[in-house]
Amino acid sequence: MSMDQLISKIVATKNPTVVGLDPKLDYVPNYIKEKIFEKYGNTLKAAGKALLKFNIGLIDELYDIVPAIKPQVAYYEMYGYEGLKALAKTIEYAKEKGLYVIIDGKRNDIGTTMDAYATAHLGLTDVNGEKISAFQGDCLTVNGYLGTDGISPLLKVCNEFDKSIFVLVKTSNPSSGELQDKLIEDHHVYEVMGEMCETWGQDSIGKYGYSSVGAVVGATYPEQLKELREKLPHTFFLVPGYGAQGGGANDVKYAFDQNGLGAIVNSSRGIMCAYKNGDFTEKEYSKAAKLEALRMREDITSVINEIKF
Amino acid sequence: MSMDQLISKIVATKNPTVVGLDPKLDYVPNYIKEKIFEKYGNTLKAAGKALLKFNIGLIDELYDIVPAIKPQVAYYEMYGYEGLKALAKTIEYAKEKGLYVIIDGKRNDIGTTMDAYATAHLGLTDVNGEKISAFQGDCLTVNGYLGTDGISPLLKVCNEFDKSIFVLVKTSNPSSGELQDKLIEDHHVYEVMGEMCETWGQDSIGKYGYSSVGAVVGATYPEQLKELREKLPHTFFLVPGYGAQGGGANDVKYAFDQNGLGAIVNSSRGIMCAYKNGDFTEKEYSKAAKLEALRMREDITSVINEIKF
Repeated sequence: MSMDQLISKIVATKNPTVVGLDPKLDYVPNYIKEKIFEKYGNTLKAAGKALLKFNIGLIDELYDIVPAIKPQVAYYEMYGYEGLKALAKTIEYAKEKGLYVIIDGKRNDIGTTMDAYATAHLGLTDVNGEKISAFQGDCLTVNGYLGTDGISPLLKVCNEFDKSIFVLVKTSNPSSGELQDKLIEDHHVYEVMGEMCETWGQDSIGKYGYSSVGAVVGATYPEQLKELREKLPHTFFLVPGYGAQGGGANDVKYAFDQNGLGAIVNSSRGIMCAYKNGDFTEKEYSKAAKLEALRMREDITSVINEIKF
Repeated sequence: MSMDQLISKIVATKNPTVVGLDPKLDYVPNYIKEKIFEKYGNTLKAAGKALLKFNIGLIDELYDIVPAIKPQVAYYEMYGYEGLKALAKTIEYAKEKGLYVIIDGKRNDIGTTMDAYATAHLGLTDVNGEKISAFQGDCLTVNGYLGTDGISPLLKVCNEFDKSIFVLVKTSNPSSGELQDKLIEDHHVYEVMGEMCETWGQDSIGKYGYSSVGAVVGATYPEQLKELREKLPHTFFLVPGYGAQGGGANDVKYAFDQNGLGAIVNSSRGIMCAYKNGDFTEKEYSKAAKLEALRMREDITSVINEIKF
């Protein structure tokens, strides 16, 4: 019922970064794909198996240096239900390894339907009396356009199962300002959404001072990161946009509080595809990912106060 | 590259309504579930098989009287990848029967990720050179909070494969106004989003005058339906909130234009669970659904101008 689980893992690894597992087939080394396509043909089943094998290799190298992974559901959905099977198996494996799992789905709907999404990703599904965890996530990204009754079902599940959510506030993409930067009276839409996060989280503040309701704020907008960090003291930030999207350590430093906490910074392609940028063979893809993850930890922690606690 | 495919089916069936297939296990008659749970145990696999059998029964009775179905992804996701397999098989069957399929996913993300969602639901996934349709949808509901570059990848796929989208504008839930009714200068957020739909659709206007970019506007807000119908002449409406959520025919009539077109009204529980409300046995669930679908067609068409063309 707070962000404590995630923050404890950040403190333990001294690493406020998360690896985005958004594995397009293009990112998977050929030596993995060739064997699988030979056996299963050019099918969605083969694609799912290739993604899973790729992810397991990454998790094996990363699980003791990063606190969390963030699989982006779109890249699994693209391969149909076989892709979503790979997502479920990836999460299962990551949880066995002790990683915190943020499912990046940006789900949103009216209350009764949001119940179903909350159950799917964070709760337990009732199947004829049997309670089954469909996707086993610890955290889900969501979109707050529908207001409180699209969020309430998530708060209930967060409270019951000690889970958390991140609500889109100021996204990292170039056109995010078209709606998010518009002024409502004298507040930007992203501020209005940020204030809603503080309200939604007010009953779930944990030992580090942060609630179970976090916010997505992009590394590509450092001024807004700074502004929102000051205005939203109980809202933990998930910060995309570092690396491939153009954000650097000096951009994300404003997301952190005086204890070196307050945010977790994501990198996806930078880590998954690290082997393509350096002096690595394909078979060293997970080693390259580990080196990049270590470099990223160093890069981020060099610009923030030491993590206290 | 327009809404023509859907509108043609509405004209052919003289029916501007769509059946929401949001099948919780609670809705599935016991005689279907008992056999399946006996064979597969209380598993997600059994749940998926039960949902699919339920859906096929409904589609068999409905395919020649309604133009479209709208499966809500959350209710499949709740049963994990086995649920999503049921979704894929449901869509496959519905398409064989000639139905237009609106995947209700309210997906949203930054451009590169939206590419993946567009591919998953409306396009073709490349698997080692093989082009495969992962979910075979004709249309996808989306959330525009991220602005133009979260929508552009969808427009590209709509154009290439003759598909369409519905963007959330004014949703049917009680708290939709918390953000959507706020004023930006002197325009409500829902108007700003509606205007964006007109802009996004301006290059894809079809023979009935509507573009490939539609809008979701709830039956529970008839005044906004009327206002938006006047302001957004090229934007087709998907109208949820009829029936179980409280909207009636007199509320939705404002969504239609002078030709009796301009909108499609959804009912989910009202049709799926019709057998629970009347003098039906469980085995008559699809017959009850058909009678309710016919009643709904009569109800909606009684308050609008006759469908011309």
